[in-house]
Amino acid sequence: MARNLERLFNPRAVAIVGASQNVKTISGQPVWALAKHGYAGTLYPVNPKYQEVEGHRCYPSIAELPEVPDLALILVAAARVPQMLRDVGRKGIPFCIIFSSGFAETGAAGRALQDEIAAIAAEYSVAVVGPNCQGMIGVTDDVYAGFGSAFSGDNFRRGSLSMTTQSGGFGYGVVILAEEAGLGFRSVVSTGNEAGLTTTDFIEWFTQDPQTKVIGAYMEGVKDAHRLLEVGDHALDADKPVLIWKVGNTEVGQRAAASHTANLGGALALYEAAFKQRGMIRVRDANELIDYTQVFDSGKRPAGNRVAIVTISGGGGILMADQCVESGLSVGSLSPTSEAKLKDIIPSFGSWQNPIDITAGIFNNPEMLAQAMQIIVDDPTVDSIVVINASLQGEIATLRAQELVELSAKTSKPILTAWSAREKFAADAYRVLREGHVPRFATPVSCAKALAALTTFAEAQRRRVREKAESVLTLERPEAKAMLAGRTADLAEFQAKALIAQYGIPVTAEMLVHDRAEAAAAARSLGYPVVLKVQSADIAHKTEAGGVRIGLTDERAVEQAYDEVIASAKAYAPDAVIDGVSVQEMVAGGTELIVGVQNDPLFGPAVMVGLGGIHAEVFKDVSFRLAPLTRSVAESMLRELKSFPLLDGVRGRPLADVEAVVDTLLALSALAIDLKDHLAELDVNPLLVRERGRGVKALDALAKPRLAT
Amino acid sequence: MARNLERLFNPRAVAIVGASQNVKTISGQPVWALAKHGYAGTLYPVNPKYQEVEGHRCYPSIAELPEVPDLALILVAAARVPQMLRDVGRKGIPFCIIFSSGFAETGAAGRALQDEIAAIAAEYSVAVVGPNCQGMIGVTDDVYAGFGSAFSGDNFRRGSLSMTTQSGGFGYGVVILAEEAGLGFRSVVSTGNEAGLTTTDFIEWFTQDPQTKVIGAYMEGVKDAHRLLEVGDHALDADKPVLIWKVGNTEVGQRAAASHTANLGGALALYEAAFKQRGMIRVRDANELIDYTQVFDSGKRPAGNRVAIVTISGGGGILMADQCVESGLSVGSLSPTSEAKLKDIIPSFGSWQNPIDITAGIFNNPEMLAQAMQIIVDDPTVDSIVVINASLQGEIATLRAQELVELSAKTSKPILTAWSAREKFAADAYRVLREGHVPRFATPVSCAKALAALTTFAEAQRRRVREKAESVLTLERPEAKAMLAGRTADLAEFQAKALIAQYGIPVTAEMLVHDRAEAAAAARSLGYPVVLKVQSADIAHKTEAGGVRIGLTDERAVEQAYDEVIASAKAYAPDAVIDGVSVQEMVAGGTELIVGVQNDPLFGPAVMVGLGGIHAEVFKDVSFRLAPLTRSVAESMLRELKSFPLLDGVRGRPLADVEAVVDTLLALSALAIDLKDHLAELDVNPLLVRERGRGVKALDALAKPRLAT
Repeated sequence: MARNLERLFNPRAVAIVGASQNVKTISGQPVWALAKHGYAGTLYPVNPKYQEVEGHRCYPSIAELPEVPDLALILVAAARVPQMLRDVGRKGIPFCIIFSSGFAETGAAGRALQDEIAAIAAEYSVAVVGPNCQGMIGVTDDVYAGFGSAFSGDNFRRGSLSMTTQSGGFGYGVVILAEEAGLGFRSVVSTGNEAGLTTTDFIEWFTQDPQTKVIGAYMEGVKDAHRLLEVGDHALDADKPVLIWKVGNTEVGQRAAASHTANLGGALALYEAAFKQRGMIRVRDANELIDYTQVFDSGKRPAGNRVAIVTISGGGGILMADQCVESGLSVGSLSPTSEAKLKDIIPSFGSWQNPIDITAGIFNNPEMLAQAMQIIVDDPTVDSIVVINASLQGEIATLRAQELVELSAKTSKPILTAWSAREKFAADAYRVLREGHVPRFATPVSCAKALAALTTFAEAQRRRVREKAESVLTLERPEAKAMLAGRTADLAEFQAKALIAQYGIPVTAEMLVHDRAEAAAAARSLGYPVVLKVQSADIAHKTEAGGVRIGLTDERAVEQAYDEVIASAKAYAPDAVIDGVSVQEMVAGGTELIVGVQNDPLFGPAVMVGLGGIHAEVFKDVSFRLAPLTRSVAESMLRELKSFPLLDGVRGRPLADVEAVVDTLLALSALAIDLKDHLAELDVNPLLVRERGRGVKALDALAKPRLAT
Repeated sequence: MARNLERLFNPRAVAIVGASQNVKTISGQPVWALAKHGYAGTLYPVNPKYQEVEGHRCYPSIAELPEVPDLALILVAAARVPQMLRDVGRKGIPFCIIFSSGFAETGAAGRALQDEIAAIAAEYSVAVVGPNCQGMIGVTDDVYAGFGSAFSGDNFRRGSLSMTTQSGGFGYGVVILAEEAGLGFRSVVSTGNEAGLTTTDFIEWFTQDPQTKVIGAYMEGVKDAHRLLEVGDHALDADKPVLIWKVGNTEVGQRAAASHTANLGGALALYEAAFKQRGMIRVRDANELIDYTQVFDSGKRPAGNRVAIVTISGGGGILMADQCVESGLSVGSLSPTSEAKLKDIIPSFGSWQNPIDITAGIFNNPEMLAQAMQIIVDDPTVDSIVVINASLQGEIATLRAQELVELSAKTSKPILTAWSAREKFAADAYRVLREGHVPRFATPVSCAKALAALTTFAEAQRRRVREKAESVLTLERPEAKAMLAGRTADLAEFQAKALIAQYGIPVTAEMLVHDRAEAAAAARSLGYPVVLKVQSADIAHKTEAGGVRIGLTDERAVEQAYDEVIASAKAYAPDAVIDGVSVQEMVAGGTELIVGVQNDPLFGPAVMVGLGGIHAEVFKDVSFRLAPLTRSVAESMLRELKSFPLLDGVRGRPLADVEAVVDTLLALSALAIDLKDHLAELDVNPLLVRERGRGVKALDALAKPRLAT
């Protein structure tokens, strides 16, 4: 259970430490902004220089305040912040927003100062927002505790969107855009350097806050990825969609992120895996945040991804169909019964097949829309309905809007509209839709994208229910831990294979040998043909080192190969410690995959699968999930590979043993959890997948221990 | 030179055939709309039922009009349209818009009626718009000749965007959105079924119209793809960007397109190739149309893709950097001189490296923006500059806007802004920007996308200049034509290889043999190892038919293989006519590509290249260009493949003979043009590319003749 932040956003009294009489300065703005927006509690400016600020009595110190406020704002220079925060703590003030810059964003000295305030906050149990932030707005309670444009205009519209942003300047810019587009807010907070409360803390609070229905987060990165995942689960359970705007995704963007904030730059692939696994919805521009909030705010959740399109403009229908399909929705046929009924009421130049084009004939027969809609609402093969009303305006527009609202009230299926009439010629219609919670979008493209986001969230909720019912494979292998504990060098192939074999992953039959005779004996015992590979923790790229010979079919060849690989390896890396040579069965046929584990400092262990060989690299066709995986998750990560058809019988190829791959991913998941304190990275490359029923086999592997920190 | 359409959009007099007195009906609207919006010419309603319509004298027939109007609008039922159009022609009226539905969109009978009106239009040289359309607006001349919402509101803002739309309902909806977003228009036309004037005709006219600066086109498809390409060249030469919103791209969308209009559904890949080759800019939603128009309207064209980002919000800078890179722009380092100068003026908690973060410190030192901007404008490593002003508002905002306008006026480099203050708190600043032609966007994302579109267009203009200076390979091979002319069956491998060899494409050394002895002799003469492949126009998939044997190293193996492939082929396809068996040198090593020609009914011949084997199919990593290709175009199609690194030394692979692949594409281009009347499809699969200097070799090929139509 997260800390209750109600009194942060709705404090009964606020101390403003370092308040200035000059409202043009940052330290002058909060008192003015709080008062201007109608703050109902008591304001206590604190500044030894003044007797009063903006008509409020000003106190020389925090200690001398006549009561304990719920919130303190600190606006003094960075160097003085620790002392002020200590005073806040001693006074017993539970929440504190530190606006001051000059902390971790400026380098080592600032970082030390930030660590100091974090320690003070912990000592006194003060929940700190910032430093280097722009403040917060408790919109529904008229609490405007901050500075900048968002704090100097009118009060924002009240609503159900709560938002946390790591960038104050940009984040509040987005809030302004969203407000102008008609959204209403519950709370907004700028988190800055996050010395105390984090983006994750706020998302968690918003999942618990009854007045928040949709959560927005603008983030460059988080430091508490594991909690973000937990919170994502809570959000799904609480039916609170989390709209994530993650920036710093490209190399240049990340460079800027590093110089801008104090965040660790967790890998984008793991962020994406985390968001996907937890049903968090990525947004990529302000209009998406606005559109998605609107559709989530309607409260409906579709039962599946089958959408019916109803249009009065053929062109709009085509565009909508394009965008729905591109967004992963299904625009399939209606039931034959529905099609027959629609055929009876739609003009011959229209279309009674999905997309259903009732045409401009609606002007001659205005009832047609409601009639068609009723048939579609009743059709069990339809999960959601989108209605394109082009630029329909005037009285006919209002009547059609009323019909849609009535239909929507009587069905659990989401009904969305794309409608581009000028505001002033369709104001009544738009008001009717708004009041009736029927979302409206300017174009079919934005409408389809919003429906796709809604559908994805609903599917994530269903998936969460299914996954809760699934078991997670857990394995404990003390021998495996012992192989890694305290080790600094990589595990060579033969050791890495021994490691994964302990978790049940099939590996090639092989023997480690130390001379020609042992090599020949091993080959005899394994059966020809065999492969020889030099084994050394110092030689990661055996082929490059000339340390591999394949297709050896007799004893002479094996003996000669033994000498060659040893000689090549020594020539390639004279200082390498050579553990021996691995003599392996030679396995042919099948499809090569790469699977592995990445134990990220931020996200912890994740499991990866991709197409093997050079193509994985060129096409970046890999899929990550954070461990532990359930079976259905492992299956979905395999199926989302673009190259999955290669395993699934494309062009007459044999069906590959997908089950065995899934088993391997589950074994890796168990391994990743069991070894999470000891393993940094593990690659199985290639993992050979054979025909269905014939299993998989690890042909090569490499493991890097996690160094103690 | 396209027909001059000035008098269509700005007619001195208009006949409205079938005008009704009821303004609520479609046929009642145009007279009302023309008058309401201030049409300055003469209106001639034509309808034997009325004496007057909306106060204008009504004539019983077109013949009886007292003068020859420039334009006739036809609003009668479909069946009566041919007679009315004939009357229009006899009267000598040059332009006619047919609004009536009931033509090709309704099936065969309607199509016949449409053919009839096309014939009448040709007979009398009437330029026809429609049928099944919603009319046109000559915005700059107050000519509102149509019906629907766009014709019943206020006059649109005058401007420089001209737009053609195949969907009246949706297209005018977009016009309304664009107008509300502040765009101004020159002309808008809805083309409907395009029995006469087409989307391409209008684009061409707009390229010639001096008052049009930006061209928009909403299209489901075109019937005159070759002219679209020519017109694309004209547009590049005339510095008129063409913004294309192409719908009907997915299977479902295309199904709807087929039932909605009378268009051929040219393949999306070829549309994309055409747009790319001609620098036409794809738009995918109304906001892109609006944003791109704004940036093109500013008139500036960047010299390259290097962008400098200047921000007062670190968060906004990160997002902008992300989006620039994702959109193909380069966010590189500034010159060391610029960085040193910037370091002197930017606070220590900002960044003097690109993205340049001048921080909220601008409030204390407002001159910093102009100072930093001047340094960047003067930096020769910068082609464009984007400025993020977050939600800066009030007086400081106006001053900064003035500085940007002054800077912009003195440089040829585009300067764009992302600025999200509320309209009412930054109205002056926004007005200053608008009047100073400095484009403003609500978010960094839309700003970066618009700059990318501008940069792409400027690059296409430069490319066009380069390509004009390049020669195109032309080859005439009467023997090749003779191989295909009149043929209906596919060419088998040995014939297809003979065909491409005539255009200089290297093929495997091979001999066609007809018995065991010939096979053995051929193998001896070619040298071992050899490959045997059965040859039959009836067997496209030789491997499936068991008709291929590889790696044959001696005479006995060759003879046995001969018997086997013949037997397998006969068992696989008992009725197949077998031409013989091809004995081929066996070539190993290198990378397999697929190259080919597609001779599309709509676009004509196109050349394709992709990664060979199953991966091309799974990853759809192919590139098309319409023939003929120049060398630089062939190079660019190869380099845009995701798998290009496989040819370019990724992971220590040898550099492939890219020059030889380019030569092959040029040879295919020449072949495609030479054989365009006789060839439907040609695949060379695989084309083996060897190390640099070692060339390419076609290992297999297949050709389909084009059947006479």
